[in-house]
Amino acid sequence: MGHAGNTNVWESGESVDRRTQLADIVTQIAAERGLDHVSVREVASAAGVSIGAVQHHFRSKDALLLAAFQRYADTLGDRIRAMDQSGKPRDVVRKLLLELLPLDGPRSTETRMFIAFAARAIVTPELAHVYHEGLGQLRTVVTHLVELAQQSGDAVTHVSADTLARTLLAVADGATLQTVTSPDEGAVTHAVAEIDAALGFVFPGY
Amino acid sequence: MGHAGNTNVWESGESVDRRTQLADIVTQIAAERGLDHVSVREVASAAGVSIGAVQHHFRSKDALLLAAFQRYADTLGDRIRAMDQSGKPRDVVRKLLLELLPLDGPRSTETRMFIAFAARAIVTPELAHVYHEGLGQLRTVVTHLVELAQQSGDAVTHVSADTLARTLLAVADGATLQTVTSPDEGAVTHAVAEIDAALGFVFPGY
Repeated sequence: MGHAGNTNVWESGESVDRRTQLADIVTQIAAERGLDHVSVREVASAAGVSIGAVQHHFRSKDALLLAAFQRYADTLGDRIRAMDQSGKPRDVVRKLLLELLPLDGPRSTETRMFIAFAARAIVTPELAHVYHEGLGQLRTVVTHLVELAQQSGDAVTHVSADTLARTLLAVADGATLQTVTSPDEGAVTHAVAEIDAALGFVFPGY
Repeated sequence: MGHAGNTNVWESGESVDRRTQLADIVTQIAAERGLDHVSVREVASAAGVSIGAVQHHFRSKDALLLAAFQRYADTLGDRIRAMDQSGKPRDVVRKLLLELLPLDGPRSTETRMFIAFAARAIVTPELAHVYHEGLGQLRTVVTHLVELAQQSGDAVTHVSADTLARTLLAVADGATLQTVTSPDEGAVTHAVAEIDAALGFVFPGY
């Protein structure tokens, strides 16, 4: 290790882009080969730069993972903000929950990294904090949409909007966990069916 | 590494017990410090035996993890078989789902190991196979109970028993994932509320 690497190429004004590039490499390694293979050394090798160049931005494995997870949360947040939210609350919630599932290649990579990250968050409070910050933001959005639907008579009211939102997000997280580990090609279909079953219960008017 | 360790203490007829003891040590390390710390060397050190003695039973990290996960699945299976199944299907399903949550110390340790294991299963087909074998057995039991309730009019019938069972198990897995990573003491209460909300939808007659 050590800080003696050639950091010239990183010393420009493009630090943010460099950090993003490295975070994407971390995501790729975590998704394809597992967190065991994420290290300053492996990331430097995959990026084709020196160890010192990576250490200029990220000093440890946890710092790398944090950057990758933050990038996932940011990308997810961007996608959710960019969503057409003009429909009925149920339709917006459905789109939001489907954004969490590994429905295509890039999202499969993201969710594999997310599960690996969550597993490490169990023993790393700093990572757990970032995960629950992101989960809390999602819950705020879903709770708000469920409340709107409760007011318009489209969602059940015998359970609190908060618990309904938590339950929907639990289905999405559980379905994601089961899908990314499944050898079965039909897992994604089942995951969507689970989301739709849960939505059907929360929004029975459809 | 190498196989030169003193394996005398393991050469008795107690192989099964030794394997179980080592699996429990793996679970403890994975739950407390994370999978990064599970290795033949670390397990030997925690068990107070030689590396060769561990290698006599488990040749690699994956073999250790597999043993720990198999032990979790066996323990869970024993608990489920020992459950009083005389009640209504909804009550039996509830008890079964609560067995999956980190509701007490030992189950918290188990579920932390389970999430770490599932994360590694993403990149290790052999581990994924064991996870999905166990999940499939749980799903068979829950599906059967939901079918019984559908026949007696206690469960909804507009969604298939298979999808209902998958949805309930997704809530349990999602709630477990969120609870074991949560810094919030109230997380377990929320997890149970999510299970009860989902049960209320599947078994509306209660």
